[in-house]
Amino acid sequence: MSSKKPLILVTNDDGISSPGIASLVDAMKEIGEVIVVAPDKPQSGVGHAITINSTLRIHKTKFHDVQEYSITGTPVDCVKMAVNKILKKKPDLIVSGINHGSNISINVIYSGTMSAAVEGAIEGIPSVGFSLLNDSIDADFTASKHFAKTIARQVLDHGLPKDICLNVNIPRLHLSEIKGIRVCRQARATWIEKFDERKDPGGNPYYWLTGKFVNYDEGKKETDVWAVKNNFVSVVPVQFDMTGYSALPALEKWKWKMK
Amino acid sequence: MSSKKPLILVTNDDGISSPGIASLVDAMKEIGEVIVVAPDKPQSGVGHAITINSTLRIHKTKFHDVQEYSITGTPVDCVKMAVNKILKKKPDLIVSGINHGSNISINVIYSGTMSAAVEGAIEGIPSVGFSLLNDSIDADFTASKHFAKTIARQVLDHGLPKDICLNVNIPRLHLSEIKGIRVCRQARATWIEKFDERKDPGGNPYYWLTGKFVNYDEGKKETDVWAVKNNFVSVVPVQFDMTGYSALPALEKWKWKMK
Repeated sequence: MSSKKPLILVTNDDGISSPGIASLVDAMKEIGEVIVVAPDKPQSGVGHAITINSTLRIHKTKFHDVQEYSITGTPVDCVKMAVNKILKKKPDLIVSGINHGSNISINVIYSGTMSAAVEGAIEGIPSVGFSLLNDSIDADFTASKHFAKTIARQVLDHGLPKDICLNVNIPRLHLSEIKGIRVCRQARATWIEKFDERKDPGGNPYYWLTGKFVNYDEGKKETDVWAVKNNFVSVVPVQFDMTGYSALPALEKWKWKMK
Repeated sequence: MSSKKPLILVTNDDGISSPGIASLVDAMKEIGEVIVVAPDKPQSGVGHAITINSTLRIHKTKFHDVQEYSITGTPVDCVKMAVNKILKKKPDLIVSGINHGSNISINVIYSGTMSAAVEGAIEGIPSVGFSLLNDSIDADFTASKHFAKTIARQVLDHGLPKDICLNVNIPRLHLSEIKGIRVCRQARATWIEKFDERKDPGGNPYYWLTGKFVNYDEGKKETDVWAVKNNFVSVVPVQFDMTGYSALPALEKWKWKMK
């Protein structure tokens, strides 16, 4: 293990035993020293959740042939514990994923995968979340592994702009079918929710969250939705300053009444 | 109940039985028709989490003298269920809180209170999160109630800029000590984490997340941290487009290698 190898922290939100993280570990082993700190169970959709009302445990695990720990918490907990408790030095790169499913557009805000990358950026570490547009446990991660490796190498070479991480989405295609990599903005889109109502054996209702993805930026070539639909890998720079700067002048003009 | 009264959805992250939401319901009753849809238990720090791997239940409750439901989910689940399942029409305003504790600066990203407001904005509804800088169950919400009412009224009058919600933080002071309302940006700050290690009765370690808030924007008058420290109520416009636009030109210049 050469001391010149970059130290790469790998995490995810599908849990430490998912095929997606195994693919990411494989890809990162070729370019650096890998340490895995990941949730002990699936944490999809937890967003930027942190564990403050209960305790956390760290367990040494051996799913992959690297130094590895599972955490009884969220993806963001994993990054915080790795950086502040487990690792002896700051990692050179944090990678999260490879997520089983899309994190384009508004999904960035619900995604545990991306929240781990955002937390990395908050801690001042170059961070990238990778997602494959395929939910299946049997998804083929060949193309995703390829792009995880090439993009991670470029981030290690260039660094990232201050306070920025990357949201990378890979279309569900063979490597030869992918046209290239496009830098994009987050498409303006939303989920129109439906709640699938069922009855328990006692006749009482319960609900499953489902929904339909509606893209308000249909056909706009600068968006991530357009990129993946047109066989490109999308790369969106993501920031954690949520201030709506464009709204400041209008709000400053309000006569804020005290009573 | 006049049909001209605005319909106001009240939610929070401290749970439906917390004193903070009771204060917010009281304040909103004076200006509109109030419906409460809130988590059945505390959900602090859950960020923008949604429930996708388990089911949700709705229970009619009677904590406050209004139409009211508790949900076995997160604050974002509550907004989604209220808007898409429970309410007969779109609310005119969503208010979240009053949170027991600060949501200034980077806390916006971890906050269930603010994530409910952000979800409201995603659904195209004027939304405001309110937080009092006092964690105590015995906190005095008098000043907070006052500002919740006056700010909610102004939002109902003006509307909000597109895709924007408001993050309002109220200092821990008597009403007479508060100097006014300031429109701000989110201060650049972070938590330096510590993990408080303890041993269980079997001698195995477990951890509590703790941390120290570090403000990189100390003394900057345009920030929310400065405002609350200087006895102002802070109002930050918050957006859900997380694209780091300023980073796009630099990233577009990279020679993105396919191999």
